[in-house]
Amino acid sequence: MSEACAVGEVMGPKGDPDERRLAWVYLSRVVQGPCAPLSSLIASVGVCEAARAVREHELPAALRGPTTRRREIDSAAADLETIARLGGRVITPDDEEWPGWRMLGLDQLDTERDREAAVPLVLWARGPLSLHAASERAVAVVGSRCSSGYGLQVASEISCDLAGRGWTIVSGAAFGIDAAAHRAALAVGGKTVAVLACGVDRPYPAQHDRLLAAIADSGLVVSEYPPGISAQKHQFLARNRLIATLGDGVLVVEAGLRSGARNTVKWARRLGRPAMAVPGPVGSASSAGCHRMIREGEALLVTRVEDIIDEAGPLRLPVAEGVPVDPAGHLRGAEAEIYAALPAIGSRLPRELSQQSGVDLATVRAVLPSLELAELVGCDSDGWFRTSSRRAG
Amino acid sequence: MSEACAVGEVMGPKGDPDERRLAWVYLSRVVQGPCAPLSSLIASVGVCEAARAVREHELPAALRGPTTRRREIDSAAADLETIARLGGRVITPDDEEWPGWRMLGLDQLDTERDREAAVPLVLWARGPLSLHAASERAVAVVGSRCSSGYGLQVASEISCDLAGRGWTIVSGAAFGIDAAAHRAALAVGGKTVAVLACGVDRPYPAQHDRLLAAIADSGLVVSEYPPGISAQKHQFLARNRLIATLGDGVLVVEAGLRSGARNTVKWARRLGRPAMAVPGPVGSASSAGCHRMIREGEALLVTRVEDIIDEAGPLRLPVAEGVPVDPAGHLRGAEAEIYAALPAIGSRLPRELSQQSGVDLATVRAVLPSLELAELVGCDSDGWFRTSSRRAG
Repeated sequence: MSEACAVGEVMGPKGDPDERRLAWVYLSRVVQGPCAPLSSLIASVGVCEAARAVREHELPAALRGPTTRRREIDSAAADLETIARLGGRVITPDDEEWPGWRMLGLDQLDTERDREAAVPLVLWARGPLSLHAASERAVAVVGSRCSSGYGLQVASEISCDLAGRGWTIVSGAAFGIDAAAHRAALAVGGKTVAVLACGVDRPYPAQHDRLLAAIADSGLVVSEYPPGISAQKHQFLARNRLIATLGDGVLVVEAGLRSGARNTVKWARRLGRPAMAVPGPVGSASSAGCHRMIREGEALLVTRVEDIIDEAGPLRLPVAEGVPVDPAGHLRGAEAEIYAALPAIGSRLPRELSQQSGVDLATVRAVLPSLELAELVGCDSDGWFRTSSRRAG
Repeated sequence: MSEACAVGEVMGPKGDPDERRLAWVYLSRVVQGPCAPLSSLIASVGVCEAARAVREHELPAALRGPTTRRREIDSAAADLETIARLGGRVITPDDEEWPGWRMLGLDQLDTERDREAAVPLVLWARGPLSLHAASERAVAVVGSRCSSGYGLQVASEISCDLAGRGWTIVSGAAFGIDAAAHRAALAVGGKTVAVLACGVDRPYPAQHDRLLAAIADSGLVVSEYPPGISAQKHQFLARNRLIATLGDGVLVVEAGLRSGARNTVKWARRLGRPAMAVPGPVGSASSAGCHRMIREGEALLVTRVEDIIDEAGPLRLPVAEGVPVDPAGHLRGAEAEIYAALPAIGSRLPRELSQQSGVDLATVRAVLPSLELAELVGCDSDGWFRTSSRRAG
């Protein structure tokens, strides 16, 4: 039977759906969190056969450690009842709701190096949102637990604006910035997803039980830990990777020098997601981490929702337009290419010019000021434009 | 005689010093500001012969335009009396005080492209400071005229701190940030240089006559425009280039999207000087220009005097130290090189690691987070360190 299932596996997830689901849930309870060796075993022999192998301890050495302690606990059926009783569900890679494309980044990480770098086995969820739909256009908004009034205001304004434009706000339901981001999304009837480092039946922090209930009412509360599991330190690191995974980008609104938000930003960068940070007053300790990340090139400075969508949204390549020859006739090389990439009317940002011209961004940024001093191009809050276009218009 | 002087020129500035000085001053009055064609004529035939050629209008076409209108005015002797009466002096390239090494960047600019891109002929000066000494360790602190209380406070604190550590504060004596920077330097008995876009006998803005008098008492007020010349728009652009030229770096404390500080930053970058900007609250219009320059990579975000000295000061290359092999034995390529560049004890900044390892900064910044997730390195407010060094200590 499990043999059949394993064979079925080779031709894609056939086999008995209920047996497969029980196998996923059993394994989720055994390893509690990401487990790269188990994920590769499942990839090669299928989930049912992997479950059987774990149960019967017929395992490669790498898997004995993570599975020995709990392999004899099979509470899969009970766990499914529990999550159902909570009005929730378990989302497995077999389900349409599984955001497989989101996990591709995780697939490509070096799982040798750190235990969190693996695709979750399943996601336990509460709430009406489809995870697949919710994570189609999503931004992770995270930050300091001890945030300032300034930080809370900025987090609220940006999250309201993003949620109002149909973006899902993903965060960790922590005190401070996280909570402000979730509340702002709820306030405008937007989509929000809370990713927990404990079971979805455990409100963490406890003071946020009502916030989490509200998110579960209209949004989604998810965790890769089965019901009943409480939050452990290393689980927060794994949780941060999920927050980064579920967003098109990570925005840090406020962060002290040692804020956990920095860890989420690192995951974003490893996953190839844009990492963004909001600046603040230089004297503010709760902005020091943001300033450091911006200064060190770990995060891009953003101040407006437009900046964020520009980074996290799909690339908006400008349409090539006719180039009047005269004004820039003497230009050569990169200067000529960059000037040519500017539209006859309208403005472009340096990265758009880089995309358009094929000239690398550093060169674009180095050349534009010279062109401006030569009065061939100008720059305003919309970006760079040809001075000829303004004189004309 | 002028012939002899021209010949002398070929073997360096011999000739009659007084005649040479009169020639410099005459030409400064004729062209009023930077004039690349005249600079190259002087370079080739010497200042006395150049003065004669201008006087007698024996000129290449490029020089006829800039010199025709005033070539018959020779008020050199009177100008020298005027500046002496003001307790000032004229500084020419013949004088020891001339900061020749500062001008090298200007020499290398494309003078075809913009009229300001030229070495000044002379500098008119008031004040006891030697320009050479004053510009040895100098930072240009500039910013918005309509600055916020926040901006004024940051400009004052940073300028006090820099001036207190022996750095000269160079600025433009404008309202707002410029004035705060000058005043802060004066307040701690530090060195400050005001660069004007008009004659040094003209207090501009008029409301700053006492500030300029105070700077002339203990610091230096300089201009490339002869006494009596009032400020014209294009002269501010030329003035900004001098501010950037006289500093080891340019710091923008506050700037609106259209602030002139942006022009000074562009000069700094063309001259190869670091351009730095201080962030502020995202809602503040007077920080919008700083945020844009940081976001677009035109200026580096700085929050502390240490950051500024790190950029503008001489490079502090770390001394290589013994590398314990064990913890990072499995590392290869850039990861290994970057880990090796970390000292056994103490911290390094990414750019130091880049210098030390020869790995480019972008790669260093990309690799460090992976090493941190692998728990091989850590990071605190001093920079990146080996976790082994902390466990050890």
